[in-house]
Amino acid sequence: MRPIQIYDTTLRDGTQGEGVSLSLQDKLNIAARLAEFGIDMIEGGYPLSNEKDLQFFQKVRDMDMRQSKIAAFGMTRRRGIKAADDPGMKALVAAKSPVITVVGKSWDFHATDILGVSLQENLDMIGESVAFLASHAEVVYDAEHFFDGYRANFEYALQTVATAAKAGASWVVFCDTNGGTLPEQVTQIVTAAKIALAGLPVQIGIHCHNDGDLATANSLAAVEAGCNQVQGTINGIGERCGNADLVCVMANLAIKKTGFQVLGGRPLEHLTELSRYVYETANLALRSGQPFVGQSAFAHKGGMHVHAVNKAAHTYEHLDPALVGNERRILVSELSGRSNIAALTMKHQLQDDRALLDKILAEVVRRENQGYQYEAAEASFDLLVKRCSDTFEPHFETIKYQIVSGDTNVAASEAYAEALLKIQVDDEIRFEAAEGQGPVNALDAALRKALSSFYPILDSMQLVDYKVRVVNGQAGTAARIRVNIESSDDHHTWRTIGVSENIIEASWLALIDAVEYKLHNTPVKNEVLK
Amino acid sequence: MRPIQIYDTTLRDGTQGEGVSLSLQDKLNIAARLAEFGIDMIEGGYPLSNEKDLQFFQKVRDMDMRQSKIAAFGMTRRRGIKAADDPGMKALVAAKSPVITVVGKSWDFHATDILGVSLQENLDMIGESVAFLASHAEVVYDAEHFFDGYRANFEYALQTVATAAKAGASWVVFCDTNGGTLPEQVTQIVTAAKIALAGLPVQIGIHCHNDGDLATANSLAAVEAGCNQVQGTINGIGERCGNADLVCVMANLAIKKTGFQVLGGRPLEHLTELSRYVYETANLALRSGQPFVGQSAFAHKGGMHVHAVNKAAHTYEHLDPALVGNERRILVSELSGRSNIAALTMKHQLQDDRALLDKILAEVVRRENQGYQYEAAEASFDLLVKRCSDTFEPHFETIKYQIVSGDTNVAASEAYAEALLKIQVDDEIRFEAAEGQGPVNALDAALRKALSSFYPILDSMQLVDYKVRVVNGQAGTAARIRVNIESSDDHHTWRTIGVSENIIEASWLALIDAVEYKLHNTPVKNEVLK
Repeated sequence: MRPIQIYDTTLRDGTQGEGVSLSLQDKLNIAARLAEFGIDMIEGGYPLSNEKDLQFFQKVRDMDMRQSKIAAFGMTRRRGIKAADDPGMKALVAAKSPVITVVGKSWDFHATDILGVSLQENLDMIGESVAFLASHAEVVYDAEHFFDGYRANFEYALQTVATAAKAGASWVVFCDTNGGTLPEQVTQIVTAAKIALAGLPVQIGIHCHNDGDLATANSLAAVEAGCNQVQGTINGIGERCGNADLVCVMANLAIKKTGFQVLGGRPLEHLTELSRYVYETANLALRSGQPFVGQSAFAHKGGMHVHAVNKAAHTYEHLDPALVGNERRILVSELSGRSNIAALTMKHQLQDDRALLDKILAEVVRRENQGYQYEAAEASFDLLVKRCSDTFEPHFETIKYQIVSGDTNVAASEAYAEALLKIQVDDEIRFEAAEGQGPVNALDAALRKALSSFYPILDSMQLVDYKVRVVNGQAGTAARIRVNIESSDDHHTWRTIGVSENIIEASWLALIDAVEYKLHNTPVKNEVLK
Repeated sequence: MRPIQIYDTTLRDGTQGEGVSLSLQDKLNIAARLAEFGIDMIEGGYPLSNEKDLQFFQKVRDMDMRQSKIAAFGMTRRRGIKAADDPGMKALVAAKSPVITVVGKSWDFHATDILGVSLQENLDMIGESVAFLASHAEVVYDAEHFFDGYRANFEYALQTVATAAKAGASWVVFCDTNGGTLPEQVTQIVTAAKIALAGLPVQIGIHCHNDGDLATANSLAAVEAGCNQVQGTINGIGERCGNADLVCVMANLAIKKTGFQVLGGRPLEHLTELSRYVYETANLALRSGQPFVGQSAFAHKGGMHVHAVNKAAHTYEHLDPALVGNERRILVSELSGRSNIAALTMKHQLQDDRALLDKILAEVVRRENQGYQYEAAEASFDLLVKRCSDTFEPHFETIKYQIVSGDTNVAASEAYAEALLKIQVDDEIRFEAAEGQGPVNALDAALRKALSSFYPILDSMQLVDYKVRVVNGQAGTAARIRVNIESSDDHHTWRTIGVSENIIEASWLALIDAVEYKLHNTPVKNEVLK
């Protein structure tokens, strides 16, 4: 088993991604989580670039990073200056991290035409920078544009990495900076570079970007060709199309391929958790179809697939989802049959109640014919099961609601929306009005106003997404409207559905399901305040 | 140059994706767009499975599919029945499509343990089904689980595809159904299968899923190994982690790799447009980091990268974004992409009017910042161009509108919706009220009532689809709402857009654009009746 080092650059290259911005505390939290997961090297940032990264290196020194090594990132010294006098070099040393990663140019054109230095001066910058840093820390040399450089002038590109190796770099990492290299080119060029560096006391690594949708394949090809380190980011966040997704790289190396070991052979059962933690911390939307860890990665929709998966999971699953901390999901859909329903209701432990199962199935079919679809509304499905098994206890009754919305000056967009709501909780009646930016917002506000004294727990809940579509889309605006609402509290996210010819009614149905689900799944109902 | 056939299954396998649901009209629209783009084969659906797919095949026969061939999809005949008597086979033939794709089992375990048929019976099912169908259409044989089957029992797996080939299949397509195969395994197994099929009059293809984040790499590896057809979906939508993304496969084959030709060598300059059209039609969120076509795919954030890109684009771009209809974005501000605007205005022949072009661009950027997106709203874009060039003549003015909607008995769903509308045409004012099944329907009815005496031509127009999505989807129901309305008359279909924090207002804006577009594009305004 050849051990492969995992080098995470979520905190540096990841933050180059569009819409990605991490606070100091976010960075420290993610670093701690990466260390807990067992990542070998964690690149924290660019100490010269800003105050936040500088503070990161100070604070992280007081934290328990377990076996992970923190790396500071910077560039080779500027031209015409000694390495020891270069502000960037000084900042790297001052970061006092056990690893320093320094990036240099491999592409002749980039040195001469963009940086404006001679080819020899570029080699000097690489060699002197690495030599200076190697007296302070373990040095990783990132060879920027190595693949483009190799294609343009392979002798010079090889000279740059040999210079870094001779100057004392522990690692030379080949970067596909533009992300456009094909797997067969990675194999060929890494093989050639490995031969060129043979005999030097250096290990080689790979750093890919996903511009050709090939970052995972390219990382694996490089490992096959001899690389012992893979650089990337959690979830592949990063500039343009992102970096290599370490989630996929680690799962492939540890579980799918043979002959390699990552993270000292520890299991990846917290991989899904790690992925979601990074999404949450970076305030990015999850990617439901993300391989291995996405919410849909082991979701089955077609009735025949569900039938087969229940007989033998590997018929439609390439690995056991538990190995990566994920789980199988059976989606109720227009394609569903009895096998889907049986599988779904398993967690409700109704297997033996044939009559109840049939009742649920009949209700699902009836509602699917009206336009309901439960695959993206598991909370509404849970309530449906409760209703069918007579364990549903409504927390309030709607007596009536009404919204008024319009505009008296369309050009200036002076639109308004108001809701009136009358509900009953046990024997008490509430009649409330609220305004909102739109009718659903107004209804939500009125409902919270009416329920808050009974159920203060609802304060912790919010609507996070709202989707609408026309079903049986033949008759235009008079067709049925399906509304999906996603809600969350501090711990969970749940999805509900409403269907009606009237978009307001559909929204209302999804909204009350969202609230009922929250109240049904909150352990203690606040009886005192009621 | 070896030509590679592109086989799209967005309309069938794509709809297995979680949250993917296409109406009949959506499917017809996407098929037309795929044909326009030049896709070789377009799989329309599974005629036995539901009424919607059955109607698809009837309607698509009357449409101009250019050089694209429509394929109907089904399974091999059931056991113990003649192919000619099998309802699935009959439905496939009744679809009358030029291509029939039939899927069969390659994996011995799957045949015996899941399907419960003997290995010989499975071969008979394949051979007889293909032979029967081949007398009616060009047959594509999809070998389900071919890679798993090969690993389990390679002799039997090869026997299944040889049986299909001998029975008259034009294509045998190796399916990595579980999506877990690695590129080197694809190379090895496709090479072996190609040798086994040598001498038979059949071509080979590949069908990948993305469970290992390797669907693009696997598709390319299979093409290298001899496959002449790639099956996949636009944007990779599909079950679990999705199918191979044809967007990435086509771009890699046509632009990045050498020696292959797709779509007869035509340029891919509308690739980004196609990708976004499918996202919009399927009501799915764009993936900003999607290779080649994502909004971030050529976005540069780092100052040094921007500097370098301005000096020489290829320093941080693996190809010219124009080749795939995308564009570079410099993220100095939050300004969203100007995608396709220049191309869109070309048809208005405004190339020489720089000042007007700049005015339109500024207006588009301003509206995109509000959440507008014109890719799926060409009618609203046309009106925007008219407004900017002062050739827009409003046919009516809205003085005010108001809708009232609610329910007094939610259990019985007695929802109501009423609209009040006051408009002005020239010097005349109309104040009208109308009821509808929902607020948009009521508004539409009121608007027609108010306008019918002025513009009787509106009687021929109807709303055919209505889509809603939350944009900048962080703040739930208080976020901005984007409404897309599709309208049609006897000859044309057009799409409009409205954006507001209020869904009613957004709908109204899309509705009045729909009516104005119709009136602007009707040759003779009925002055007599006015």
